[in-house]
Amino acid sequence: MKDLVGACVFGQSGGPTAVINASAAGVFTEALAQKNITKVYGAAHGIEGIMNEWLYDIAKEDPKEIAMLKHTPSSALGSVRYKLKKESELKRILEVFRKYNVRYFFYNGGNDSMDTCNKVSKYLLKNNYECNVIGIPKTVDNDLVGTDHCPGYGSAAKFVSTSIMSMYLDATVYQKGQVTIVEIMGRDAGWLTASSALAAYKGCGPDLIYLPEQVFDRATFIAQVKSTLERNKGNCFVAVSEGIRFKDGKLVSSQPALENDKFGHARLGGVAASLEAMVNNALPKTKTRHVELNILQRCSSYVASAEDIKEAFEVARFAVRSACAGETDKMAAIARPKSGPYKAEYVLSSVDASANAVKGVPKEWILPDNRGLTQDFIDYALPLIQGEANAPFEDGLPRFARLKKVPVTSPSSL
Amino acid sequence: MKDLVGACVFGQSGGPTAVINASAAGVFTEALAQKNITKVYGAAHGIEGIMNEWLYDIAKEDPKEIAMLKHTPSSALGSVRYKLKKESELKRILEVFRKYNVRYFFYNGGNDSMDTCNKVSKYLLKNNYECNVIGIPKTVDNDLVGTDHCPGYGSAAKFVSTSIMSMYLDATVYQKGQVTIVEIMGRDAGWLTASSALAAYKGCGPDLIYLPEQVFDRATFIAQVKSTLERNKGNCFVAVSEGIRFKDGKLVSSQPALENDKFGHARLGGVAASLEAMVNNALPKTKTRHVELNILQRCSSYVASAEDIKEAFEVARFAVRSACAGETDKMAAIARPKSGPYKAEYVLSSVDASANAVKGVPKEWILPDNRGLTQDFIDYALPLIQGEANAPFEDGLPRFARLKKVPVTSPSSL
Repeated sequence: MKDLVGACVFGQSGGPTAVINASAAGVFTEALAQKNITKVYGAAHGIEGIMNEWLYDIAKEDPKEIAMLKHTPSSALGSVRYKLKKESELKRILEVFRKYNVRYFFYNGGNDSMDTCNKVSKYLLKNNYECNVIGIPKTVDNDLVGTDHCPGYGSAAKFVSTSIMSMYLDATVYQKGQVTIVEIMGRDAGWLTASSALAAYKGCGPDLIYLPEQVFDRATFIAQVKSTLERNKGNCFVAVSEGIRFKDGKLVSSQPALENDKFGHARLGGVAASLEAMVNNALPKTKTRHVELNILQRCSSYVASAEDIKEAFEVARFAVRSACAGETDKMAAIARPKSGPYKAEYVLSSVDASANAVKGVPKEWILPDNRGLTQDFIDYALPLIQGEANAPFEDGLPRFARLKKVPVTSPSSL
Repeated sequence: MKDLVGACVFGQSGGPTAVINASAAGVFTEALAQKNITKVYGAAHGIEGIMNEWLYDIAKEDPKEIAMLKHTPSSALGSVRYKLKKESELKRILEVFRKYNVRYFFYNGGNDSMDTCNKVSKYLLKNNYECNVIGIPKTVDNDLVGTDHCPGYGSAAKFVSTSIMSMYLDATVYQKGQVTIVEIMGRDAGWLTASSALAAYKGCGPDLIYLPEQVFDRATFIAQVKSTLERNKGNCFVAVSEGIRFKDGKLVSSQPALENDKFGHARLGGVAASLEAMVNNALPKTKTRHVELNILQRCSSYVASAEDIKEAFEVARFAVRSACAGETDKMAAIARPKSGPYKAEYVLSSVDASANAVKGVPKEWILPDNRGLTQDFIDYALPLIQGEANAPFEDGLPRFARLKKVPVTSPSSL
């Protein structure tokens, strides 16, 4: 195998996470050190930036600021939600790659981004343009096929479980109990909502957990809340995924809260507000409140998991090393030993398999009657939230990375 | 002055904060060390627990766990919202105090709690029952009269500004901008919403800030959002207090979002959802989302201010020392030097003045056109969020204090 010498380009895609920039730091650090990579370009707004030649010269960045990316949430280069659909787009990408002699392409994102990697790498292969393409996983949803778990999930799970432990204490201070309903991200997979079971494992977590992997039923929900209130001194703590659906497949968040809502009021709230309305209707004397954890779930770098930060950084370095070793058309993934203590292992998986597929929480890890998750889930998730971020603060506030973002105005002169 | 020898009782009241238990730790630590205090009782659920003799023997607690209270959010003894209204209640309190020989009473809370202190201390004085009563301030709202600021505010302000900096990065990752509206606690005073200006001061904060100290007007709001979007590449970040009101004095959160909403739809969301609906109506092509920071504002001990934790602890110790020195019918308060570097000073203030009064953000600290706060506000607030909590974690999750809460079954045998 002859050495492939040329530039690399890196892009970020989809919803940000607390550690997506740790992967950026991993790619930049490793790529700048690889002798066969002559230029390191960061694309603004992912694939859209590539097509528009919005490229930054990463060699111009201060290595200290690149290291700071490990504690900087959101997408430092700017993100994009863009699904490649036309041959003309792929043609344009190849044109830009030729112009800048791009021989390595790394794309960081979720299912849609792996679809992008898949299409780009297949197109380049078909056109005999030598360029190694490796996808780097990222999603708080943890729903990517082909990897044990996704960078971003551990930090989001740590934020969710830590926040729920804190809110659980807050919710149980009064003599008279109440129903607390917390809405957690996850449209199609319940991994992040399931992480609330880690708080329950520590004795400060939800009594009832509703995942999108299971059909939601109003009457069952009310019965479960009632019996929890009776058992639990008038307190009931609920965690619910934004993606739960009724038996007919319709999202609970898209339907009126009450079955016979003859006014057909459009709801302004999310699914937790809907569940709160159900409880208010069935149990009007019970104090009920709802909380949406919202975007803090994916950007709270101050309570990120140290393990997650490390893995996000290392899986990205592994992607670069793999590409330099001649691999292409793959996703860098994380595996764990079949037995013994947890240790992240970095492997390559098929990018075809990850493109657009969704991996849900296994049915056998879900306890009956919405009572939470099994010990198997706890054993799976607990290692991923280990270690504190110790994010740098300055003057009492987060010290985020300050990139220069020097635009590349002319093609690299290799 | 003769020495007053007897038991002390401590209670927590009102909405919890991230550091209310730091004050509990301060009271317990100092009271256990004072020779004139023979017993240290913790009342479950504040004044209600006192009337019901729900008392814990604090001497039975492990000092290590008492220290852990500094990093444990919410009210470890249980809280209460109870306004004393009847003479019979005061009579009952005196009865319990006599039974347990309570000679020191410390009550930790906001305006209503200072009202309780005021009524109890006046009643005891009138009945010639020697018992020194000192209120200890606590509120994320920062609206107590008689103190420079309130324990709990610094940590909530640090959470709000840190979270907004993180969300600001998240909100600005896409090429196409959006309007982000964040709802912050504060019914009557805008201190906590104002703290979002600290994020703006660091370049990652709101373009527009709406406080309850100012009248809210729909048309002005929409005009301000529009002009921000034009100036700001299609992005506009808004911080709004839950307590903003229209010119007629009605809470924005209690009214239909749109003036001519002929369907009279009841709103399920809060004020941020309402403002989102206004933007959606006026600017239907603009992507808009709202976030309620909700109860995390008052219970996120993992991002508490070290200065606030220290002050909450120290102001409580000062309360105990003051009572032991013969002071009563006062509130322990915090002052700062008139000039020179910031340093918390502990002083006594009138409990009458703090009872039920509300201190708002000074008008002269509010910039025109909702553009935020002046440098005077930044200089006021910035010292209060200094230092990181470094809260203890265990197994990847918060390690909260584990109190034994040993009930007192018989009166102390002095």
